[in-house]
Amino acid sequence: MGTTTFLYKSDPVRGRQWAEVFRRRAPEIDFRIWPDVGDAAQVRFLAAWEPPQDLAERFPNLEVLFSSGAGVDQFDFATLPPALPVVRMVEPGIVRGMVEYVTHAVLGLHRDMPRYRRQQQEAQWSPLPVRSADERRVGVLGLGSLGQAVLAQLVGLGFDCAGWSRSRHAVNGVQCHAGADELPSFLARTEILVCLLPLTDSTRGFLDARLFSMLPEGAGLVHVGRGPQLIDTDLLAALASGQIGDAVLDVTEPEPLPPAHAFWRHPNVQLTPHIASMTQPLSAAEVVLDNLRRFEASEPMIGLVDRARGY
Amino acid sequence: MGTTTFLYKSDPVRGRQWAEVFRRRAPEIDFRIWPDVGDAAQVRFLAAWEPPQDLAERFPNLEVLFSSGAGVDQFDFATLPPALPVVRMVEPGIVRGMVEYVTHAVLGLHRDMPRYRRQQQEAQWSPLPVRSADERRVGVLGLGSLGQAVLAQLVGLGFDCAGWSRSRHAVNGVQCHAGADELPSFLARTEILVCLLPLTDSTRGFLDARLFSMLPEGAGLVHVGRGPQLIDTDLLAALASGQIGDAVLDVTEPEPLPPAHAFWRHPNVQLTPHIASMTQPLSAAEVVLDNLRRFEASEPMIGLVDRARGY
Repeated sequence: MGTTTFLYKSDPVRGRQWAEVFRRRAPEIDFRIWPDVGDAAQVRFLAAWEPPQDLAERFPNLEVLFSSGAGVDQFDFATLPPALPVVRMVEPGIVRGMVEYVTHAVLGLHRDMPRYRRQQQEAQWSPLPVRSADERRVGVLGLGSLGQAVLAQLVGLGFDCAGWSRSRHAVNGVQCHAGADELPSFLARTEILVCLLPLTDSTRGFLDARLFSMLPEGAGLVHVGRGPQLIDTDLLAALASGQIGDAVLDVTEPEPLPPAHAFWRHPNVQLTPHIASMTQPLSAAEVVLDNLRRFEASEPMIGLVDRARGY
Repeated sequence: MGTTTFLYKSDPVRGRQWAEVFRRRAPEIDFRIWPDVGDAAQVRFLAAWEPPQDLAERFPNLEVLFSSGAGVDQFDFATLPPALPVVRMVEPGIVRGMVEYVTHAVLGLHRDMPRYRRQQQEAQWSPLPVRSADERRVGVLGLGSLGQAVLAQLVGLGFDCAGWSRSRHAVNGVQCHAGADELPSFLARTEILVCLLPLTDSTRGFLDARLFSMLPEGAGLVHVGRGPQLIDTDLLAALASGQIGDAVLDVTEPEPLPPAHAFWRHPNVQLTPHIASMTQPLSAAEVVLDNLRRFEASEPMIGLVDRARGY
């Protein structure tokens, strides 16, 4: 089989952390960091956030493409060789970060923190009635590994939880809805909506006026999917009418969000710069090494993308 | 034994909810709501937030005093008959509310939410490095039922947790410190400090400049104990010097906090009007009924106060 050459093309600071893990755990692998490609014909594996456009020509012997992040929506599948396996990053750091962020956002909406912040600006001491978590209905869009981990935490905190996904899933303690037919009933019961959908052609613009209108009045939104899933003007209108009470947004379109955008200074929008969940370089490198082992042993890789679905 | 007369002297809206629970679960008890006391000599049990000053004279046959809230620091023990049993409210609603509030506050400090809020006001998109929860050292002052429940949740989220209390405790997964001797080592390792101490003579003014100086620079503070435990001017000085990075305060002295107080508009203070945890009237009434049953059966009541300790 000869030398295994692995090329890394993403944030170079993280690349050096990957290199250290590879050197320690798999010294037999020739680990290279873009742009120091060396002999491109030797590259069998590529981990990238944005692969080069001419992938097939440049790396004729490429066997697997790894995304360096949780999503693969930044890949243009049309330009990738059809048979090339593509692998998402399924890494415990991503999951833990997302669980932390969503738990914080949901607890904040549940306990009226946006309103207390506005009251604080007016030096107004006004306790609001407290609802018990088991009377608070939270709904999660997207039941992949992130959605399921988030739901496990929210169920543990006692929330009344439901989930929705395109295909049927079962999650402990969660009322699961599937497909377009069951979306209205899922939305009708959801007071705090969490979007964790992958970005695909069918989820682009998913969070729009029609969807907001199916939620109970004053619902909260936590958007941790992808920016292009949200129609900004529809959210602004829903906030203006009170249909949406408060929104917590970690993703926008574009990113960074331009300084003049209305979200920045909206009193009912809490905005963070796409930090909900970040790959931890050390555990990401371990996850990729495990997948390399699986690949060489002809075992299924963790996070292998179904290219027909797009995730 | 005759009729059991139970007097309720606290928020009257909640009192009517208690009355309904008593009527359904213990119709033999004569449940009265202050000021409709009737024959005071018949009153054997009193649930109150603030008992009347002339308690012993007014209710000569009082057998137990229940606090309608988690604390008993509002009672002046010197004016109470020495042998009168005093019972705190140990109620699942109080515990759940506190777990929610502290989890939200700690996750917010852990994930730099105060800084992201300030950045949002400047329309500044600047992701900050993410620390993993197992590298984040959280410390809880007070290891009673609230402190232990909060720690169980924080341990579950993966934080590196320690606790401190006056007397020795053991809590699963938590490095426990006890007494004045072990306070400095507890503080030295604590990046996010949660105060859940009861208010007693020895905890009044506990959160002062000396304590803050023993924390690592830039530590976060979550104060959900009692207002008089905090020296406001010392906190303001610690925030000004950067010794404390951000503070989340749910309790103040006095309450409500006067509109001119510096906490209201301080960019590094998040203030809520004593709402971290509130008794749920329905379960509170159930808890008291269970304690009445225990009292009549000569079993130990849940939440019986050690009057020498003051909690």
